[in-house]
Amino acid sequence: MPCMESGMTAFTHPLDLRAVIDAAARIAPHAHVTPVLRSTSLDLLAGCALHFKCENFQRVGAFKFRGACNAVYSLTDAQAARGVVTQSSGNHGAALALAARLRGIGAQVVVPANASRVKRNAIERYGARIVDCEPNMAARDRATAALIEQSGAELVHPFADPRVMAGQGTVALEFLRQCDRLDALIAPIGGGGLMSGCSIVARALSPHTRLWGAEPSAAADAHDSLQSGELITDRVPQTICDGLRGHLAPITFDILRHHLDAILLADEDEIVVAMRLIRERLKIVVEPSSAVALAVVLREPERFAGQQVGIVLSGGNVDP
Amino acid sequence: MPCMESGMTAFTHPLDLRAVIDAAARIAPHAHVTPVLRSTSLDLLAGCALHFKCENFQRVGAFKFRGACNAVYSLTDAQAARGVVTQSSGNHGAALALAARLRGIGAQVVVPANASRVKRNAIERYGARIVDCEPNMAARDRATAALIEQSGAELVHPFADPRVMAGQGTVALEFLRQCDRLDALIAPIGGGGLMSGCSIVARALSPHTRLWGAEPSAAADAHDSLQSGELITDRVPQTICDGLRGHLAPITFDILRHHLDAILLADEDEIVVAMRLIRERLKIVVEPSSAVALAVVLREPERFAGQQVGIVLSGGNVDP
Repeated sequence: MPCMESGMTAFTHPLDLRAVIDAAARIAPHAHVTPVLRSTSLDLLAGCALHFKCENFQRVGAFKFRGACNAVYSLTDAQAARGVVTQSSGNHGAALALAARLRGIGAQVVVPANASRVKRNAIERYGARIVDCEPNMAARDRATAALIEQSGAELVHPFADPRVMAGQGTVALEFLRQCDRLDALIAPIGGGGLMSGCSIVARALSPHTRLWGAEPSAAADAHDSLQSGELITDRVPQTICDGLRGHLAPITFDILRHHLDAILLADEDEIVVAMRLIRERLKIVVEPSSAVALAVVLREPERFAGQQVGIVLSGGNVDP
Repeated sequence: MPCMESGMTAFTHPLDLRAVIDAAARIAPHAHVTPVLRSTSLDLLAGCALHFKCENFQRVGAFKFRGACNAVYSLTDAQAARGVVTQSSGNHGAALALAARLRGIGAQVVVPANASRVKRNAIERYGARIVDCEPNMAARDRATAALIEQSGAELVHPFADPRVMAGQGTVALEFLRQCDRLDALIAPIGGGGLMSGCSIVARALSPHTRLWGAEPSAAADAHDSLQSGELITDRVPQTICDGLRGHLAPITFDILRHHLDAILLADEDEIVVAMRLIRERLKIVVEPSSAVALAVVLREPERFAGQQVGIVLSGGNVDP
């Protein structure tokens, strides 16, 4: 599946601090600078100073808009004229749809037949064309390849694309500007695009900041990949964190392996408790996939005691 | 019940713009400057530009902290040494408890026996002493008067107190600074303290801004009081907006009668829809009492068409 290979685009679009700074300028007219929230009562509970970067307030309700927007606005006019295509049953599909609409180009999203109505509606609301496929990876890849073949549209992969990762890295660029100092930066790991972009930025601008991924114990494929040194891609995890059921790609595996301190795990019930605390104390709506980043702190408070801890709340799209 | 009279304190603490500006300085070290949120999709839906002042992010999760904090820090040291007392089954009790703890003085809150466990817990968590009473106004007033008699503590009424109203007015002071222009300002009406303080500020600093109260149709006592010119205090409303079940006091009735354009009503199902929209589109948690202010806009969009509309989201404490 050439469309799923990321090595080639990695060469034409290197992922470095410059790429993220360029991405920030490119998306600035369209994306929100999201606020950082604090909570005295959560700080007391956690025994450290928590800073929450609220990507649930980003357009389409998730950080995914940053990467999709950077990819769409990176296209030449000739490329853009042929439109964009992706495969996603979640936030990236809606994000690419909105970014394409803003640039006035077409977007097609391959969606498995069992995807939730709410997510389909979001993708359609932003004006993308939905292409149904069987709910398995082979069928998704086949449908995506067929679309590219027919239309010449540009693939914008949800994470294994340096343009997307550079866009996601703007989260860390803003976050480090908004906080005096961060001893730790924690973000959830699904495909690894968010943390890949963020770690490039943090390592360049704030080398003392320790970088932690957060993953559900029930979907510990990235954790186990980093521990074993071998990329694991054959699991079908069962977790309430619907955004974290995917696995790393070679390119994100490689970046995270070099830059992360570790990936920390939390159990499902700990994620539910963290989600409830965020709702009660911060008064905001986040996805379970976001709550895992707080859950890992509350599970091992001694690791973060007294530190300035930055937590990326990745999104707020919850099925009612 | 002398403790419930507000006329006397009104003379010693006049409610004017100066009082609100002083309150802002007094509470600045303790209260949050809350953000103003926007939503492109809600603007499209409403047909106007909505600006949401997020008092759900205020300390204790509601604007009530502003008034309680201003009252507590307005006390002389001699008064403060005798502590404060109030009657509240909701946010004001928690707000006064926190304000008192910050100043290092005692707080007693008279709570009806049927108040929810969650609200009791919040009051206790901030260190106030809870005094139980029978769930009716006469018993509450009796218990409050007895406490004042015994301890010499200062009554801080939830709304019929110029120090409290001046504190709540700081919402409008911030809001007008945060927005270039507001054609309309809408806030929910319970006892009327929030809108009393806000209307004093808006009339002084932004005379062209139209001022609208929002009330559930099922608890239209303030609406009917303003329409009839007679203060209605004998109803027991049934509404999901638990913060708006109270009625105006003579002092708030008088201020609102002079300053409001009108009080607009929304039905319970319209309030539920508004609350859901706020959760889905703004990704924040608000009380039903806050959602009524959006509900009145969605009910009569023609009234606000094309305007810059400021909505005060008063709080975010929801029983799970």
